[in-house]
Amino acid sequence: MTLALNINHLLNSIDPQVHREEIVALRNQHPSDIAEALEESDAQPSQLVEILSQIGNHKAVEAFAQLSIEMQQTCLEEGNAQTMLRFVENMEPDDRVDLLKAVDDDVREAIMPLIAQAERNAIRKLWQYEEGTAGAVMTTEYAMLAQNLTVSTALEKLRLQAPNKETIYYIYITDSERHLLGIISLRDLIMSKPSAGLDAIMETNLISVPHEMDIEKVAGVFSKYDLLAVPVVDKDKRLLGIITVDDVIDIIEAESTEDFQRISAVLPFDEEYFKRPLPRLFWSRFIWLAVLLFTSLLSTTIMEWNAAVLNQMMSLAFFIPMVMGTCGNAGTQSATMIVRGMALGEISLKDMGRVFRRELVMGLLLGGALGSMAYFRVFLQDQDIMLACIVAAALLATLLAANLLGALMPLALKKLKLDPALTAGPFIATIMDALGIAIYFQIAFSLMAIF
Amino acid sequence: MTLALNINHLLNSIDPQVHREEIVALRNQHPSDIAEALEESDAQPSQLVEILSQIGNHKAVEAFAQLSIEMQQTCLEEGNAQTMLRFVENMEPDDRVDLLKAVDDDVREAIMPLIAQAERNAIRKLWQYEEGTAGAVMTTEYAMLAQNLTVSTALEKLRLQAPNKETIYYIYITDSERHLLGIISLRDLIMSKPSAGLDAIMETNLISVPHEMDIEKVAGVFSKYDLLAVPVVDKDKRLLGIITVDDVIDIIEAESTEDFQRISAVLPFDEEYFKRPLPRLFWSRFIWLAVLLFTSLLSTTIMEWNAAVLNQMMSLAFFIPMVMGTCGNAGTQSATMIVRGMALGEISLKDMGRVFRRELVMGLLLGGALGSMAYFRVFLQDQDIMLACIVAAALLATLLAANLLGALMPLALKKLKLDPALTAGPFIATIMDALGIAIYFQIAFSLMAIF
Repeated sequence: MTLALNINHLLNSIDPQVHREEIVALRNQHPSDIAEALEESDAQPSQLVEILSQIGNHKAVEAFAQLSIEMQQTCLEEGNAQTMLRFVENMEPDDRVDLLKAVDDDVREAIMPLIAQAERNAIRKLWQYEEGTAGAVMTTEYAMLAQNLTVSTALEKLRLQAPNKETIYYIYITDSERHLLGIISLRDLIMSKPSAGLDAIMETNLISVPHEMDIEKVAGVFSKYDLLAVPVVDKDKRLLGIITVDDVIDIIEAESTEDFQRISAVLPFDEEYFKRPLPRLFWSRFIWLAVLLFTSLLSTTIMEWNAAVLNQMMSLAFFIPMVMGTCGNAGTQSATMIVRGMALGEISLKDMGRVFRRELVMGLLLGGALGSMAYFRVFLQDQDIMLACIVAAALLATLLAANLLGALMPLALKKLKLDPALTAGPFIATIMDALGIAIYFQIAFSLMAIF
Repeated sequence: MTLALNINHLLNSIDPQVHREEIVALRNQHPSDIAEALEESDAQPSQLVEILSQIGNHKAVEAFAQLSIEMQQTCLEEGNAQTMLRFVENMEPDDRVDLLKAVDDDVREAIMPLIAQAERNAIRKLWQYEEGTAGAVMTTEYAMLAQNLTVSTALEKLRLQAPNKETIYYIYITDSERHLLGIISLRDLIMSKPSAGLDAIMETNLISVPHEMDIEKVAGVFSKYDLLAVPVVDKDKRLLGIITVDDVIDIIEAESTEDFQRISAVLPFDEEYFKRPLPRLFWSRFIWLAVLLFTSLLSTTIMEWNAAVLNQMMSLAFFIPMVMGTCGNAGTQSATMIVRGMALGEISLKDMGRVFRRELVMGLLLGGALGSMAYFRVFLQDQDIMLACIVAAALLATLLAANLLGALMPLALKKLKLDPALTAGPFIATIMDALGIAIYFQIAFSLMAIF
C-alpha cells in the first residue's frame, strides 16, 4: 500500500528530485510488488507506461507481465505500438497470446508487424488452441537438446539458452522431428559425470499431456506427480510446449473461484471484488436471483393447488420451511460431495451404480433419523399425531429423493457433457424445494384421506 | 486400474514366475502410480510392505512416501520397526513428522531409537510447530551455502548435497548463525561466471515467510511471486526450513475441499468419497442436518406466532418459499463473494465500511428489481393488490437485510478470530430464512392493520 502511495506522490509532484528518488525506490522492488502498486495507485495507463519505461530495466518488463490482463489491455490500446513493443515481446508466449486476443483488432494489427518473425510464428501457433485446454496455457519457451550430447556440452548449450527460457529445470530431449524422447532434470544433469551422454541419463518413462486435455485435469497431473513443468504433445507425441507450475497454481485458484461462484449463484467473473463495476456485479447477481425467483414460483403453484388441504390443516404451513430446508441441505450435501469427488478424479461415470447404492442407504438412514426427531418435536409441541406422522413421513421421503437426485444429477450432467458443478448450485436446490413441497402435500393428502 | 489388477494377480498367484514378472512391471512405473495401484489393490498392509521391499530400490521408498497417510500409518503399525525404518528414514521431514504424530505411541517409541541422531533432531524441531502454520509444512532438507564461495566451488558442493535435498533449484546463503543473507537460483548459478563470488550474484531482496504464518497465506505468496520454494524464518530472520511448491498445490486443494464441505454443510473429512466408511459419512452429514433442522424450527415458531395473520390471508403462505429462497440466495451470494475475496487477500478488515456501502446499494437495487417483478406476478395472477404489495415490500426488505448480513458477517467473524467461511454455509442461510419469514409477516401485519 505504501508503495502505491509513493507512486501517487510521484504523479502529483513536479520536483525532478522526487521523481528520481521514487523511481529508484521502485527499481529495488520485486516485479510483482511493482505491478500491484501500479494497479492500486491512481496512475493512468499512459502514466503507468511512462513510469515503467523509466524503471527501464528487466524489472519493468517483468512488472508489466504481472499486471492484470485488463490493465495490460488498456496500456496497449492507449500507448503507442513502438513503446509497447518491448513489453509485449518479453511477455511469456501464452500470456502474450491471451493479451493479443483481448485487444482491439486495429491495435493488434499495429503491433504484430513490429514483432520479430520467430515470435510471430509462436503467436500464430498458440493462437489456435481452444480456451481451457493444455495447448492454450502452455509456453513455447522451453529448453530442448539433442540426445547425442554429453553432459558438459549440454550445460554449455543450456547457458546460452537459459536467458530466453521460462524454465531450465527440466530439459527436453527430442529427435529432429521434435518427437519427445526423454527428460532430464537440471538436478540430474548437475549430478552426472560431465562425460556421460544425455541418452544414458535421460528419463524415458515420460509424463506428458495431450494439447487438448482440460486444464483442470492438467492440474491433477501436477498434483499427483509433484511436477515443476509438464510437456504438452500432439497425437504423434511431438513436443508442442510446456506448462509450468506457477501457471497451474493460478489455474487451480481460478477454477475454484468459478466453482464457488457457481455454487453461490453468481455468474462467473474474473475481476477482484472491489474492481468489478457495480452495474456488472448487479447484473451477474440479478440474473440468477430472477431465474431462481421464477423457479421458486413452482412451489407457490404447488401450494395453490393444495389450498384445500392447507385450509383443512393450516398448521401444515408451519413446517414448510423445515421440509424445504432439510431437503435442500441434504441435496446440496450429496451434490457437492460428488462434484468435488469428480473434480479430484475420485469418482467417474462408471461408478454410477455404486453411488446410487451408497446414497440410497444414506438417504434412508438420514431420513429415518431426522424423521423420528421431527416426529417427537411435532408430537410433543402440538399433541397432533396426524401432523407428526405427516411431517415425519414427508421428511423421510423428501430426504431420500433429494439425496439420490443430488448425487446422481452431477453424473447425469457429466454424461450429457455439461458441467457437473451446475448441480451443486441453488437452481437444483430451488427445484428440490418444489419437489419437497409436492411430496409433503401429497403425503398429507393421502394420510388425511385414509384416516 | 490395470496396475492394481496386476497386483491382485500377483497376490493370488503362487507361481514364482508370475511374481517376478509383476515385480519387474511395477519397477518400471512412476512411484505415484505404484502408490495409487497399491491403494486400489486388495493388498493387506503386510503384503504391501512385502511388495515394496521386493521392488527394492529408490522407487519403493518414493512410492511409500506417496501412499495416503492412513495407509502409511497402518503399514507402520503392522510392520516391524526394522523393516519400516528404511521407508520412514527416507520420507520428507514434514511428511514424516505428520506420520509419526498419527501412529500409536508405542509404535513411535519402537522406531524412534532406530532413526539416526541427525534425523531425530530434525523430527523434534518440526514437531513443535502448530498445524496449519508454515512451520508445520516446511522441510528441513534444503541446499545451504556460505557467501564466501565462488560459483564453481558452489556447484561442486551442491553436487555433494543434492541427493539429500528436496530441491536444489534455490540455494540459500546464510551466515554462521543461519541468518538468511540471500538466495541464488540454480539457473543464475549455471549462467554465472565460474569465478564469480556468491555474494556478488545472490538476490538479497528476499521473499520469506515467518514460521507462524497461516498456510493459506503462504499459498498466496507463492501465487503472487511465482515461486518454486519459499524460505521459512524465525523472528530473527534465521532460516528454519523451506516450503516447496508441490506441497503448496496440495494445501490449496485441501483448503478448497474444506471450504466446499463447509459451504455444503458436511463436516470436513480428508478421505476420498468411496474410502470414507458409511457410518462416519452418515455422522458428518447427520450432525449438520440435525442442527439445521432445529434451526429451521425458528421459522416454524415465527409462523405459529403469526397464525392469526395467516388465518386472515391464507394465500400469504404460498409465497413463503419465494421470500425464503430469494433471501437465502442473496445472502449466500454476498457471503461467498466476501469469503472468497478475503481468502484471496482482496478484502481485509479495514474495508468494512466500503463493503457496507457497496452492499447497501446492491441490496436496494436487487430488492427493488426483484420486488417489482414479484409485484406484477402476484397482481396479474391473484388480482390482489394488498398481497402484491406485501410480497414486494417483503422482498425489498429481506433482500436488503440478507445482502448486508451476508457481506458483513464474514468480516465480523474474522474480527472475532473465527473462520469467515462458516458464514457462507447453510447455518446462516437457515437463520436468514427465519429472519425473512419474520420480516414478511411483520410487513403483512403492518400493511393489513393500516389498510
